[in-house]
Amino acid sequence: MTKMILASASPRRQELLKRIGLDFEVRPSTVEEKIDVNHSPEQVVKDLSFLKAKDIADKAGQNCIVIGADTIVVYQDKILGKPENKEHAYRMLSMLNGCAHRVLTGFTLIRTQDEKVIKRYEETLVKFRELSDAEIKAYIETGEPMDKAGAYGIQEIGSLIVERIEGDYFNVVGLPMVQLALALKKEFEVKIL
Amino acid sequence: MTKMILASASPRRQELLKRIGLDFEVRPSTVEEKIDVNHSPEQVVKDLSFLKAKDIADKAGQNCIVIGADTIVVYQDKILGKPENKEHAYRMLSMLNGCAHRVLTGFTLIRTQDEKVIKRYEETLVKFRELSDAEIKAYIETGEPMDKAGAYGIQEIGSLIVERIEGDYFNVVGLPMVQLALALKKEFEVKIL
Repeated sequence: MTKMILASASPRRQELLKRIGLDFEVRPSTVEEKIDVNHSPEQVVKDLSFLKAKDIADKAGQNCIVIGADTIVVYQDKILGKPENKEHAYRMLSMLNGCAHRVLTGFTLIRTQDEKVIKRYEETLVKFRELSDAEIKAYIETGEPMDKAGAYGIQEIGSLIVERIEGDYFNVVGLPMVQLALALKKEFEVKIL
Repeated sequence: MTKMILASASPRRQELLKRIGLDFEVRPSTVEEKIDVNHSPEQVVKDLSFLKAKDIADKAGQNCIVIGADTIVVYQDKILGKPENKEHAYRMLSMLNGCAHRVLTGFTLIRTQDEKVIKRYEETLVKFRELSDAEIKAYIETGEPMDKAGAYGIQEIGSLIVERIEGDYFNVVGLPMVQLALALKKEFEVKIL
């Protein structure tokens, strides 16, 4: 029996995997999320997801499949990670305000017994409505922006900010569920549905 | 102080309103969800949402704002409501399989003290991935399709079925959050963010 391990501390990713009834363990990677600005956003999310998965796979035993993931926001070729403080969150949200940006999530699957590695990414377009300055500040005060790429979370109070998306919604939350499920099924014979 | 009342038994709509921190009461309307096939889908969701809101508003006291909502799936001009049984769910899912369809949610807001009524709707495009017959049957066995328009729920196991969307994700879950919040703010001075 293969054990599934999620190498992420993100409660949102854990929630997504729980909702589909997947049996898994959480072992957050402690690898530093350092973004190499010389690489393309696509490369960055794949590389970071790999580093997280590898970190945990190296310490895991046989018969494990480790899932690593990384999500970034890209606006006009600028990569936005998590905000460092409220001012940083304010700058990010003011920049994204009323505009469309890209959300990229990369994921890596590593099977420990044969070290088979699958790296993928998915992109979703997200459009913010026009927010007033007071709304941006009120949103920051809720605390929601602080641990999230681009300084927003789409699934809670962020639902009042995101006007429309194009692509996989769950990719914005933190895992591209369809692509992940298809990769697990085709590459590792893990049947989810 | 105005009391907000949700005239819907849908646990998904309740969850959406809870997540944004709205203080509200749930009083499900018992109006029959009868679809008039001579009306456009846009008209149908607005009319049904109005009937639900009106049903509860008539029994509510002063100083209430009642929210009624109705969600349908439209595929090639055919309106799909909730499936009647497993066979019906199977027919619906087989029809939607691999294709794009429209999801329409209508909502009505009624303020009881002056009977001010606002009716709106929002449309989102949803694309299913190509499912095998076994996957459709396995999905029906989870029980998830039974109480949902179009025989699927996007937010749980349905996340493995929906490949992409265009528009407001929360509209597919059951309430167009951005449009609802803007209507509450502009028409009734209810500030949410």
